[in-house]
Amino acid sequence: MTGLNPTHDPKRKSWVDTANSTDTDFPIQNLPFGVFSEGEGPRRVGVAIGDMILDLTALEVGGKLTPGGDTKVFDQGVLNPFMGLAQTVWSQTRAKIADLLDAEGGDPSLPLVARSAAQLHLPVFVRSYTDFYASKEHATNVGCMFRDPDNALMPNWLHIPIGYNGRASTVVVSGTPVHRPNGQLKGPQDDAPRFGACQKLDIELELGALVGTPNPMGQPVGAAEAYDNIFGYVLINDWSARDIQVWEYQPLGPFQSKAFGTTISPWIVTREALEPFRAPAPERVQPLLPYLHEETPNNFDIRMEVALAPKGQDATVISRTNYKYMYYSSALQLVHHASSGCAMETGDLLGSGTISGPTPDSFGSMLELTWNGRDPVEVDGGTRTFLEDGDTVAITGWCEGAYRIGFGNCDGTILPAVDFGIS
Amino acid sequence: MTGLNPTHDPKRKSWVDTANSTDTDFPIQNLPFGVFSEGEGPRRVGVAIGDMILDLTALEVGGKLTPGGDTKVFDQGVLNPFMGLAQTVWSQTRAKIADLLDAEGGDPSLPLVARSAAQLHLPVFVRSYTDFYASKEHATNVGCMFRDPDNALMPNWLHIPIGYNGRASTVVVSGTPVHRPNGQLKGPQDDAPRFGACQKLDIELELGALVGTPNPMGQPVGAAEAYDNIFGYVLINDWSARDIQVWEYQPLGPFQSKAFGTTISPWIVTREALEPFRAPAPERVQPLLPYLHEETPNNFDIRMEVALAPKGQDATVISRTNYKYMYYSSALQLVHHASSGCAMETGDLLGSGTISGPTPDSFGSMLELTWNGRDPVEVDGGTRTFLEDGDTVAITGWCEGAYRIGFGNCDGTILPAVDFGIS
Repeated sequence: MTGLNPTHDPKRKSWVDTANSTDTDFPIQNLPFGVFSEGEGPRRVGVAIGDMILDLTALEVGGKLTPGGDTKVFDQGVLNPFMGLAQTVWSQTRAKIADLLDAEGGDPSLPLVARSAAQLHLPVFVRSYTDFYASKEHATNVGCMFRDPDNALMPNWLHIPIGYNGRASTVVVSGTPVHRPNGQLKGPQDDAPRFGACQKLDIELELGALVGTPNPMGQPVGAAEAYDNIFGYVLINDWSARDIQVWEYQPLGPFQSKAFGTTISPWIVTREALEPFRAPAPERVQPLLPYLHEETPNNFDIRMEVALAPKGQDATVISRTNYKYMYYSSALQLVHHASSGCAMETGDLLGSGTISGPTPDSFGSMLELTWNGRDPVEVDGGTRTFLEDGDTVAITGWCEGAYRIGFGNCDGTILPAVDFGIS
Repeated sequence: MTGLNPTHDPKRKSWVDTANSTDTDFPIQNLPFGVFSEGEGPRRVGVAIGDMILDLTALEVGGKLTPGGDTKVFDQGVLNPFMGLAQTVWSQTRAKIADLLDAEGGDPSLPLVARSAAQLHLPVFVRSYTDFYASKEHATNVGCMFRDPDNALMPNWLHIPIGYNGRASTVVVSGTPVHRPNGQLKGPQDDAPRFGACQKLDIELELGALVGTPNPMGQPVGAAEAYDNIFGYVLINDWSARDIQVWEYQPLGPFQSKAFGTTISPWIVTREALEPFRAPAPERVQPLLPYLHEETPNNFDIRMEVALAPKGQDATVISRTNYKYMYYSSALQLVHHASSGCAMETGDLLGSGTISGPTPDSFGSMLELTWNGRDPVEVDGGTRTFLEDGDTVAITGWCEGAYRIGFGNCDGTILPAVDFGIS
């Protein structure tokens, strides 16, 4: 860990007592950004600190924190205006917030809201959502099940950070229930498809990178620059309908099987807060092309867990993994994404792809954990192959060092399928 | 043609003389919406009429046309606020504009701008862009070339309006130049990919439907409702890099091969203006599932052409086709898109997919016209297999009846690839 950046100093304490607990996700070294309201009140931008939220919208109105100068950036109910400012402003603002919250020299008169009393909202307007496929273990497992076990990994996978455009309109904040999707289903023995409720509803454990600094159409982005253009990170549960997917995905990729809901955690953990936890990528099986060369370790050491609670039952952890296993970093994904001349915009969300580790208990989807339903997992009160109505899935993630940098909740509960009227 | 809607009356004339010419794209029966500026002036909403533009932003400021009541909807420089209003308001506003422009009883004092003096802009904020694959001929041709000629059409194609999420950030208005993309290229005989400029740069002739009325997450849309939820249509050239595509597309579909630019025509021809040109879908090879049943003919009889002009040379028409050949209408695409619970939003663009007719001169891509480069097409001053730098491609489309409903220009010129610095 570097001692150069005072916001990374493990000795710092806050005048917000709960921020000094060793098990909080939100010590003074984290300071993630989010959007909250009290009841039906207006949406405000805040920073999580211990059990509280510092109200940045109020600070901006009061003239105590003005990152946009004369232009307000915390008055839109989303973080995009702030994320569109210069990277130096992100950093200066974070340093200023740390100083305001510091146990020594801070300002205990600042407006705080209890997290337990606040409603959390989507922190950004998600301009576009791209879902990648960056875990070699996940791509290999899926290839084994759906294609050819002897050639599970496609030949392009070791060269390209494979990804596809997802659906931004159904990215929702933690706590939003998700209906089981309807869709076309066709088993291998069926003559024709039928329309009905998904029977293989799954999760995908991912990390999401949020682009702050845009690049215009036609202008590529280098690897070091790409790392810096990312404002911060959230947890993602990319809900997936495996039976819809297997029938629809050829030749143009997943579509409605991934379009019905994507849950993200409400607090954007800044790239700067994760900086002390940088980790190298796994060894390259084949050399990457020069445009994908990373000078620095752009992965992060983030522990992650998936817990499943049937309705009225306790949660059981069904997967424990780590983001550091990912073959392609978010920075490399961004480089590749822009390499064709594709414009990347403030508020773009890049999903890492399912984070599966090397062992069966570290897989990031039920498809892999149960090996497409063959090996059910134990949960409180029964077993699961895929999700049942009423199940709640909770994803957690944190960095562990001299302090803990956590991401907060990424939860969702499955509601029954909507009756379509006709099938 | 129906005589019920006065805006479809072929006998109506306008006090704008050029709107009464038989060869204009923009008679009083069309009235497409767009966004324009004069020089560096502010972006205003307008309606094309003959060689002129009626300035709706000025009419709204002056209180002569107030579709949003007390709330201004023509002051944002995009049509999304108007498209988000009730469908009855779209219709009433169009009828009112027709009355204002009518040769008898209209108001010749209204503010007009010459189209030749105006700069046209993207008419909507494209919230999300989805690209479909609805021509059976196109899907069959591509399947023959890239996969198995004996099983060219995938088994799901006759049941699902196949589509994938495209990239909204690079949808640009007609006239915007597009750089040849860079990307990973690997020939079948190559040991490894290389990074470089696309060598198989192509077009895709499409029609785009723009969603006006949204549906919330979890709430499906029926076929009749879907037709009505579409505000209007534009022409699309979905530029495509075939060599990048063939190496990247498995298993998650096209990505950077389609991300570098998508050109649309500047005028949104309303669904209501196209109403008299509704056409039935081609006969179904197999019955569609009930949720995809159309009570009414939801295709349109729209003639379309592609012309190619090498730099400094004249344009040659290289394809003549018709939108009516499409197997899946935009309405059916929208039904399928929302069927999983996917929220559709105001400003969503749904590309029809490449519009290829039954004969070789009616194919909507150079891939098909030249059969992947085997049979070059003749153009002024030479031949082409794929596009060369400096080439300009112009797509046109129009309905022909007692009057002509045209779409205006959908043009783009290819600039050389950007030097990436490293490869």
